[in-house]
Amino acid sequence: MSDPMTATTLRAAGLSATQIAETLISLIETREAEVRAFAHYDPDQLRLQAGALDARRERGPLHGIPIGVKDVILTRDMPTEHNTARYLGSRPGIDAACVDTLRAAGAMIVGKTVTTEFAATARGGKTRNPHDLSRTPGGSSSGSAAAVAAGMATIALGTQTGGSTIRPASYNGIFGWKPTWNTISREGLKMYSATCDTLGLYSRDAADLELLADVFGFDLLADMPTGLEGLKVGFVRTPTWDRTETSVRTAMSEAIALLEGAGATVSELVLPPLFDDIHEAHKAILDCEGRSAFLSEVRNTPDIHDEFLAKVENRRGETPESLRAAYRLADECRGAYDDIAAGFDIVMTPSATSEAPVGLDSTGDASMNSMWTLLQVPVVSAPGLKGPSGMPIGVSFVARRYEDRRAIAVAGFAAKVLSSAVLETA
Amino acid sequence: MSDPMTATTLRAAGLSATQIAETLISLIETREAEVRAFAHYDPDQLRLQAGALDARRERGPLHGIPIGVKDVILTRDMPTEHNTARYLGSRPGIDAACVDTLRAAGAMIVGKTVTTEFAATARGGKTRNPHDLSRTPGGSSSGSAAAVAAGMATIALGTQTGGSTIRPASYNGIFGWKPTWNTISREGLKMYSATCDTLGLYSRDAADLELLADVFGFDLLADMPTGLEGLKVGFVRTPTWDRTETSVRTAMSEAIALLEGAGATVSELVLPPLFDDIHEAHKAILDCEGRSAFLSEVRNTPDIHDEFLAKVENRRGETPESLRAAYRLADECRGAYDDIAAGFDIVMTPSATSEAPVGLDSTGDASMNSMWTLLQVPVVSAPGLKGPSGMPIGVSFVARRYEDRRAIAVAGFAAKVLSSAVLETA
Repeated sequence: MSDPMTATTLRAAGLSATQIAETLISLIETREAEVRAFAHYDPDQLRLQAGALDARRERGPLHGIPIGVKDVILTRDMPTEHNTARYLGSRPGIDAACVDTLRAAGAMIVGKTVTTEFAATARGGKTRNPHDLSRTPGGSSSGSAAAVAAGMATIALGTQTGGSTIRPASYNGIFGWKPTWNTISREGLKMYSATCDTLGLYSRDAADLELLADVFGFDLLADMPTGLEGLKVGFVRTPTWDRTETSVRTAMSEAIALLEGAGATVSELVLPPLFDDIHEAHKAILDCEGRSAFLSEVRNTPDIHDEFLAKVENRRGETPESLRAAYRLADECRGAYDDIAAGFDIVMTPSATSEAPVGLDSTGDASMNSMWTLLQVPVVSAPGLKGPSGMPIGVSFVARRYEDRRAIAVAGFAAKVLSSAVLETA
Repeated sequence: MSDPMTATTLRAAGLSATQIAETLISLIETREAEVRAFAHYDPDQLRLQAGALDARRERGPLHGIPIGVKDVILTRDMPTEHNTARYLGSRPGIDAACVDTLRAAGAMIVGKTVTTEFAATARGGKTRNPHDLSRTPGGSSSGSAAAVAAGMATIALGTQTGGSTIRPASYNGIFGWKPTWNTISREGLKMYSATCDTLGLYSRDAADLELLADVFGFDLLADMPTGLEGLKVGFVRTPTWDRTETSVRTAMSEAIALLEGAGATVSELVLPPLFDDIHEAHKAILDCEGRSAFLSEVRNTPDIHDEFLAKVENRRGETPESLRAAYRLADECRGAYDDIAAGFDIVMTPSATSEAPVGLDSTGDASMNSMWTLLQVPVVSAPGLKGPSGMPIGVSFVARRYEDRRAIAVAGFAAKVLSSAVLETA
C-alpha cells in the first residue's frame, strides 16, 4: 500500500494544493496536540497559500507538496523565532534561499517546526516522538522530523551542524538527507558553524528525496547503482563506536546480513589513525565558529544561556595554533576519506547511538554524525529497522562529496530490504 | 594633523552622535553628488538614529561612529537591494550579525553603499573614485571604499569573495581588512561562495581597525610586533604576478626599500609548485558554490544576467572529481601556507594589479587577492604609496589564520613609513 502523504502519491493523485491542504489540516488537528511539532502553524494561512498556488498558470514539480520548515530558517510570511526569547514574533520578511527555491517549484509551506535554541544545543523542546510520546524526537530538527513521521508534512527542512538531521531521522523512522556541504544554499539559515552547518531534508520515501535532488539541481551521476546486487559496501564503525548501545550494534549486524542477503558485499572499512581526533577537531571548530556566530546574540541578550556565552568567551581556551591544527586535521581527513571511500560503492554506518531516548530534556547523542558533518560528505539515513523497544533505528549511507544521488539511491534500495525484515519478524 | 573623520579623533573629541551626524550630513551633501557611493542614504533617518544613540544610558566604544554598509548586508531599517532588480525596495527587517554587533557598540549606520550585482561581478556600478572621478573605485565593495576615502563614513563594511575588499582599498588609498575567514559572522550577508565569502572592513586609520578588532572580539596575541625594526617580512609575488603592471611592481620595490629603511628585513617567499593552480581552484570553487548560491535567484528571475545562469547551469562542466580535486588543492595549500609563513613575522604582497583603472564599466582585476581569500588568511591593505598617475597603491600584509591583529599592527606601522615617503617626494 502506498503512503498517502508522499510527494510521489500526491503527485500521482493529481490533487490541487487546496485539496492537499484540507487533508493536511485534518491530520494536523488529529496529531499536533500530542506531537507538538510546530512552532508556528496557521490553517487559514495554509488555505490562502494553497489557493495562490492553484491559481498559478503552471504547476511546478512540487505543486502543493506540504513542507515543514525548521524555525531557524527564514520564511517571508511566518515568524522565525529560533526557540529563543530575543526573536519571539520576529518576522524578517524574506525567504531563505532553499525556501525560495521550493516555493518556485510550487511547494506549500505548512508552518515552522520546533528547533532547539538556535539549533545549537541538545536541550530538548516541546516536541514528542510520534512513535512513543514519552521519548524525544531528537534534535535540533525536532519538529521537522516529528512532523514528517506523523504525516503532518510530506517533506521537512532541518539543519545539521553535529547530528541535527540524521539522528532525528533515525529516532523517527524516516529518511534524512544531509547533502554535501553547501550544495544547497545555507543562506537564510541561522548560523552556528560555517564549516559544518548544512541544510537537511526529511521525507517518508526515497523517491521524494530524488524529487528534491531534481529541484535543487543535483546532477545525475554517470554510474548510478541500479540495486543492491553486487554493490560493494564499506561498513565504518567510526572513532565513536564505543558510544553505541547494543540496540544499534544489533541493528547494524541485521542490516549487514540483510544487505548481503540482497546480494551486496559488505566489508569493514577501517579508518586510519589520522581520524582518531576528528571528533575533538569538530568540537574545536564548532566552538571557534560559534564564537563569531553568537557574538551579536551575546552582545544584545544580557540573560543569554551560558553555553552561548562560553563560546563567545572562548572558555575552551583555543589559540591560533590549536585552531589551525583542528582545521588542518579536518582538511586532511577530507582528502584521506575521498581516497579511502573510493574503494567502495557506498559506505554504511549507524545514524545514532541508540533508539530515541526516553524523556524530552535532552535530544540525544550526536556523536555518530559529527565526523561526517565535518567531512562535508552526503549522508542519507534509511529507516526500516526497529530496536528492542520497538523504536526505529536508521542506517546511514554515505557517499563521496557531490555524489548525493548515489547515497539517496542506495538508501532507497536498502530501506525496502530493511523494512521487509521487520514485517517478516512482526 | 589628525584626520577629523577617524573613530580615534571623533572619540577623543567627545562628540555626541548628533554632532557627528550633522558634520557628516554636510560632508555628504558636498561629496556624494560626485562620488555616488550610496545606494540608500536618508539624512533624517540618520538624525533619528543619532538621537536614539545619544539617549542611551551608556556610550559604547563606537558611540556615534558613522559606518557605511555594503548593500548586500542586511539592515533592519534600510533597504537591501544587492544592485539587482528583484530586490528593489526590499526591506528585510533584520540586521546582519555584524551590523547587530556594531549597533550594540553604539555605531551609527550612515546608509547602504553601492555594490556590484550580488557582489559577484566585476561589472561596475555608478560609484566613482574620489581621487579621480574618471576612475573606478574598484569593486564589488565600490561604495564602501569610496565613502570612506571621501570622508563620508569613518568605517565601512564590504565583503570579499575574490578581491572585493582589498582591491578597492588599494584603489581608494584607505585601509582594508579582510579578516580570517569566518572570524566575523557572515550571517545576513548575501552568499556567493561559502568557502571564500568574508566580511571586509574599511577605515582611514589602522587604530580604527584595532578598535573594530576589539568590538568583534579578536584576542590580542602574545607576541605582538612593536614596530618595523627587526621585523622579518616575506615578500610573495603570488602565481599571478605576471598580471601586475609596472606601477605596482615599482610600488612594491619602493615599499620594500622603505620597510628595510625602517629596520625590517624583507626576503622573498617563494611558493612551492603546489600553489601553481590555486587560482584555477578558486575559480572552480566559486563556480561550484555560486551554483547553489544563485539557484533560487535564477529560478525566480526569468531575465537574470547570463553570468548567474552560467553558474547554475554548470557551464564550466565541473564534475564530482574535479570539484573534490579543487577543494583538496585549497585544503592542502592552506596547511602548506601555515608552515611556509611560520618563517616570517608577516608576509607582504600587492593589493591590486594596477592603480584604479580609468572608466566605470569594470571594477578591475582581483587576481592578486583570490589566492589569499581561498587560503582564508587575514589580509590588511595599507595605503600610502602613489603610482605614476597619482593614484593610491596599497600594500597587503598577510598573517596566518587567527593572527589578524598582527596584520593590522604591521599595516599601521608600514602605512606611516609609506606615506611619509610620498610626502618627501611631493
